[in-house]
Amino acid sequence: MAVYTEVTDEELSAFIAQYDLGAVLSCKGIAEGVENSNFLVVTERGPYILTLYEKRTRKEDLPFFLGLMEHLAEKGIACPLPVAGRDGVALRELSGRPAVIVTFLAGMWPRRISPQHCAQLGEALARLHLAVGDFRMERPNALALNGWKDLFAKSAERADEVAVGLRTTLADELAALEANWPADLPAGVIHADLFPDNVFFRGDSLSGLIDFYFACNDFLAYDIAICINAWCFEIDGSFNATKARLLLANYRKVRPLSRAELDALPWLCRGSAVRFLLTRLYDWLNHPPGAFVRPKDPLEYLRKLRFHQSVRGLGDYFLDDSATGEA
Amino acid sequence: MAVYTEVTDEELSAFIAQYDLGAVLSCKGIAEGVENSNFLVVTERGPYILTLYEKRTRKEDLPFFLGLMEHLAEKGIACPLPVAGRDGVALRELSGRPAVIVTFLAGMWPRRISPQHCAQLGEALARLHLAVGDFRMERPNALALNGWKDLFAKSAERADEVAVGLRTTLADELAALEANWPADLPAGVIHADLFPDNVFFRGDSLSGLIDFYFACNDFLAYDIAICINAWCFEIDGSFNATKARLLLANYRKVRPLSRAELDALPWLCRGSAVRFLLTRLYDWLNHPPGAFVRPKDPLEYLRKLRFHQSVRGLGDYFLDDSATGEA
Repeated sequence: MAVYTEVTDEELSAFIAQYDLGAVLSCKGIAEGVENSNFLVVTERGPYILTLYEKRTRKEDLPFFLGLMEHLAEKGIACPLPVAGRDGVALRELSGRPAVIVTFLAGMWPRRISPQHCAQLGEALARLHLAVGDFRMERPNALALNGWKDLFAKSAERADEVAVGLRTTLADELAALEANWPADLPAGVIHADLFPDNVFFRGDSLSGLIDFYFACNDFLAYDIAICINAWCFEIDGSFNATKARLLLANYRKVRPLSRAELDALPWLCRGSAVRFLLTRLYDWLNHPPGAFVRPKDPLEYLRKLRFHQSVRGLGDYFLDDSATGEA
Repeated sequence: MAVYTEVTDEELSAFIAQYDLGAVLSCKGIAEGVENSNFLVVTERGPYILTLYEKRTRKEDLPFFLGLMEHLAEKGIACPLPVAGRDGVALRELSGRPAVIVTFLAGMWPRRISPQHCAQLGEALARLHLAVGDFRMERPNALALNGWKDLFAKSAERADEVAVGLRTTLADELAALEANWPADLPAGVIHADLFPDNVFFRGDSLSGLIDFYFACNDFLAYDIAICINAWCFEIDGSFNATKARLLLANYRKVRPLSRAELDALPWLCRGSAVRFLLTRLYDWLNHPPGAFVRPKDPLEYLRKLRFHQSVRGLGDYFLDDSATGEA
């Protein structure tokens, strides 16, 4: 669940009065998301999402995130659009937290991933990558190689509490990633957290992307690797090559991939597996016993890492490895 | 938070297709309530609440609860109204749970209780008690004296882990309640759980009552005692006599209280304090360490019990004790 901050009705009414949204009819905390507090606010104008940014979102990053959503919405990418108050300002404060109202996006995230979901995801991801081409703001990826090393340093001593040998596995893998990480691939703003709960569908059609609060500048193909890990493994740990093929093929119909990007994919997948393994490991070891968020299982990403480590080339994913974009 | 059951988009779409509500636009788990899973479902017809009944709600009680909401809505009491499918049936099944769609009630529950809230609560509670006068179904109160004794038996051995002497305090109080509990007061269907989060206001006006899943047959004045405990104490434990006077005076404008009901109030308040103390104590001692619901503090109700134990008559509450209903 994600409601860390309680908002009184008086505070909310005063807050909403700064917008052209009519009166508040209802406000319910949403049991989704992990980092921030989210509310579904129904006003006389309809439903909106209110987000209160909690301490893990850095206040100085908010103009980047909000600017990105505005840029994407202008480019026709379906995503929540920050709503400005009558003074033209979207980023305000509520209950002592930075707070933003965004438009309500119809759709539900898929609980069971079908190949067709992955096909549409690939296309939407490529369109996102094209749309950010002329976005001017930048935000370095804090969860890139150096960030991983920091996280590992904080968790290494207790890593074997979660799985025997995990400390050695991670130390070796970080060294291998450092030696093999691609140096020069097409880069831009990536979503960096495009898990199924951040992608909405109406029926079988993708209706929008949400939660841009990890967006940052990095290799575009790294975003694909994150999606392969998040969408193309079954619950039993097996890799679904059909889903990955569809994701990649539909991506490439919109934005072709270079030979270098294709060749880098196995390492990008390993890096992405390490990134989520490390944040989950840290949260697993450090969540307070009374917290109401159930930490996610780090071992799910250890299994994904092991799969990618066993791959010797793109062919082992049963992916098409021609650089033409035909799949 | 309260989402114990995950509903897939396919299951939800098939479920909603049984109603005249158009297509599903969105479904978000609500981070409120403790016993059941609640979702705010936006369909083409607008917002609705979907409730999945979890194991602590007995399936055989559901016709009583749904019948009560329908009866109250017919009588003009603002409360959620169960929505029937095209086949005329409201109680269905979803994801292996009994499930109901109810109408959306505008309003927010008050985070800071004002005397004016208590005044309106008193009037609404009395109107509720009048409206159930001709409701035909019955449900015994499982959390009356015998239920308290059962709960105490399950927690007695470990009660002193929560507060030294709690076991003796509870044993003595249960004996005193048994000896002094009123035998014959006006009875009917009571809400039995009318805490602030179950009462909605729009601005300063009470807009409706929700969550009838503890409703049962008992003394009507016992419902007043539950509200006094839930609404008329400050966070520091002090009793706010202004709030209690307003609650009672506005109740009596709609439904006059007899001499016997007024005289019984201190014991009813003690009984109500023991009821919530015992359920909270049980949950405190038995919640699994990894659960995401933070158990409520039993000691809040021990302090309320001690206050009522110190009262020698209605005058000690600074309440008007005339039986005329004038305050």
